[in-house]
Amino acid sequence: MTGGPLAGIRILDLTAVVVGPMATQTLADYGAEVIKVETPGGDILRDLNGRSITPAMSSKFLHLNRNKRSIVLDLKQAIGREALLRLAARADIFLWNFRPSAMNRLKLTYEDVRVVNPRIIYCGMFGFGRGGRYREKAAYDTIIQGGSGVAALHHRVTGEPRYVPIVIADRSVGAIAVQMLLLALINRQRTGEGAEIEVPMFENMAKFVLEEHMYLKTFDPPLGGTGDTRVLERGNRPIPTKDGFICITANTNAQAFALFDAIGRPELKADPRFGSVTARFANVTEFYAMRNESLRQKTTAEWLAIFDRTGIPAMPYHTLDSLMEDPHLHDVGFFEKVNHPTEGKIVNMTLPNRCSFGSRRDFLPAPKLGQHSVEILREIGYDDPAIAEMIESAATIDGRLGRRGLAG
Amino acid sequence: MTGGPLAGIRILDLTAVVVGPMATQTLADYGAEVIKVETPGGDILRDLNGRSITPAMSSKFLHLNRNKRSIVLDLKQAIGREALLRLAARADIFLWNFRPSAMNRLKLTYEDVRVVNPRIIYCGMFGFGRGGRYREKAAYDTIIQGGSGVAALHHRVTGEPRYVPIVIADRSVGAIAVQMLLLALINRQRTGEGAEIEVPMFENMAKFVLEEHMYLKTFDPPLGGTGDTRVLERGNRPIPTKDGFICITANTNAQAFALFDAIGRPELKADPRFGSVTARFANVTEFYAMRNESLRQKTTAEWLAIFDRTGIPAMPYHTLDSLMEDPHLHDVGFFEKVNHPTEGKIVNMTLPNRCSFGSRRDFLPAPKLGQHSVEILREIGYDDPAIAEMIESAATIDGRLGRRGLAG
Repeated sequence: MTGGPLAGIRILDLTAVVVGPMATQTLADYGAEVIKVETPGGDILRDLNGRSITPAMSSKFLHLNRNKRSIVLDLKQAIGREALLRLAARADIFLWNFRPSAMNRLKLTYEDVRVVNPRIIYCGMFGFGRGGRYREKAAYDTIIQGGSGVAALHHRVTGEPRYVPIVIADRSVGAIAVQMLLLALINRQRTGEGAEIEVPMFENMAKFVLEEHMYLKTFDPPLGGTGDTRVLERGNRPIPTKDGFICITANTNAQAFALFDAIGRPELKADPRFGSVTARFANVTEFYAMRNESLRQKTTAEWLAIFDRTGIPAMPYHTLDSLMEDPHLHDVGFFEKVNHPTEGKIVNMTLPNRCSFGSRRDFLPAPKLGQHSVEILREIGYDDPAIAEMIESAATIDGRLGRRGLAG
Repeated sequence: MTGGPLAGIRILDLTAVVVGPMATQTLADYGAEVIKVETPGGDILRDLNGRSITPAMSSKFLHLNRNKRSIVLDLKQAIGREALLRLAARADIFLWNFRPSAMNRLKLTYEDVRVVNPRIIYCGMFGFGRGGRYREKAAYDTIIQGGSGVAALHHRVTGEPRYVPIVIADRSVGAIAVQMLLLALINRQRTGEGAEIEVPMFENMAKFVLEEHMYLKTFDPPLGGTGDTRVLERGNRPIPTKDGFICITANTNAQAFALFDAIGRPELKADPRFGSVTARFANVTEFYAMRNESLRQKTTAEWLAIFDRTGIPAMPYHTLDSLMEDPHLHDVGFFEKVNHPTEGKIVNMTLPNRCSFGSRRDFLPAPKLGQHSVEILREIGYDDPAIAEMIESAATIDGRLGRRGLAG
């Protein structure tokens, strides 16, 4: 057994790129067996992310697809679809992220899969809920960011519409999909029943953004406009120091007053503009302006020492490169070097959370395309002539390492 | 019963602000009973977010704390701590987000709680893993963003270090905490055992950022530098139209070629700079530059119609206000008006995901501070004289609506 609370749970993962694969990465990390079902062209992320050691093994693909096996199946061919349904018969979870109309065309709807496995947990992740008029739109992270108001938030703060330079929509929705699948497993443990689940990116990101920023339009009639002014305050940014930047916050009175002492301005504690949580909120522009000019006389390291001592939340302003050298991350064993059979030595990130129930004990390096097609087809009872026929008609690809075909 | 897969699960929620309360909001929405344990000062989010109808009921607090009851307990007093442990004896989950040293001082460590409930699922959410040197730092969303490289990503793209204007660290880590708690419930259903869990914000955000952007330093020796150049490309932004902006993406050949047709440039399909996924990645700056100037001749609505017809992923560029009027969200019943007993009519957001296993059937409006203190203390066997003593010594607050004290 793999270890971890999901040991013995089997997942058929038809997803590609980020939003689905990051969800099954988490489930695999906690012990689930994940069979990654790829089209003959493979998960587009294999190539989307630029240079790699061997073809179709981009860095982001390596991170997101550890602990999974890869089978290629051309689902448009009857023998490909049939193999998938044989796999579904013995799976617990069936996860996909095409557009719903595509699943209809492939005859892989919930009804189709439930025929072979009434207890299946069938989960679709796609752009837009099927009850609404955008249901047939394709979705990607940036357009979901733009459609859920994220780029406009940036516009409000800086004067320029811009996406967040990291796939926050994919990653938020991927995390939520994990939640829904775990809830379905809990429900099934209680009731014996499978489930049908839909995780639409747009609605999830609309909730994400509007919980933060519906603000005074939460009230009916509204008390004012949308947008949490404190969060959107232009001055809320990393603060220049003598030799770079530092990231601090001072929300409570304890923190704010400690900051006033640290910068040699104790009189600000009694200043009606800054002397309470509500006062600092009401005068937020001035507060940040004062704060952003107050740290230029010392280096980042000097300020970090002072702030750690006085309980002011503070972190170094990390670049990607300095983050990889962060001493705390090295203390906790966050980075490990692993030997990938085709890509050589790679940097793997270990699990961030500590859980007494443990996690997966073994480690599967991210697979080449179709690396496990033959192995998996054999597991479900295909003999070599049947497999050869599937390879012949390109319904599958034999991507075993160092092998060509089934001979030898 | 409340309905939903977590019906009957009882959660003691000692968390405040966003990262913890959003986690218990999700669990409450799916049927868990959440008892929100507040200090006499209350969850700081009640006031942090500006104006409200009645005091200490900010809009963000209303959204995040629906479906929960509030008890005030001063945990520094022995009678407050004792009441908490009596609640813990009958709870399934105990969730907190102070610094670990604070839980030591309060004598509410895992060992302390396990004495009264060996099967408890005890979960701490805090800034930094206890195995590392930052363990005693306090954490807030912005400093975690800055410490995990997010602000530096913005620096790379725009030349200015800046946080994302929405609490992505809080919300990512809150979603991950839900995952860990659900895994613990699954584990407990299988083994009968409780669990101890730690969810550190910094490590989780470092993984989030570096899965995206470790990029060519994933390989050892590195193939190049950090930072996924496609995602960090300055041209990857909402595109100006005749009357505003539009958000599109064109990753696959099918999408890119459809775009070239739509803008009247079919010859670009054979252009060596733009004719394949890898070519467009290699020439990404030019590709975006061409794309960003190609849509000025038509309005956003005209382009949306064209792109929907031709399968190019596209969304309107929404502001917060236009997002609240989005027709798809109204089609799916995303917004509902509810009557809050003290705040009047408010806009509530319904659950984004469709799950055949259902969700909570009732709706509890977000509570006033200590609104349920008396009710909850009575549930665990405190008689009125004992409750009066706790109120007298400010170990609790009786925040029942329209009531003063226990009389009448």
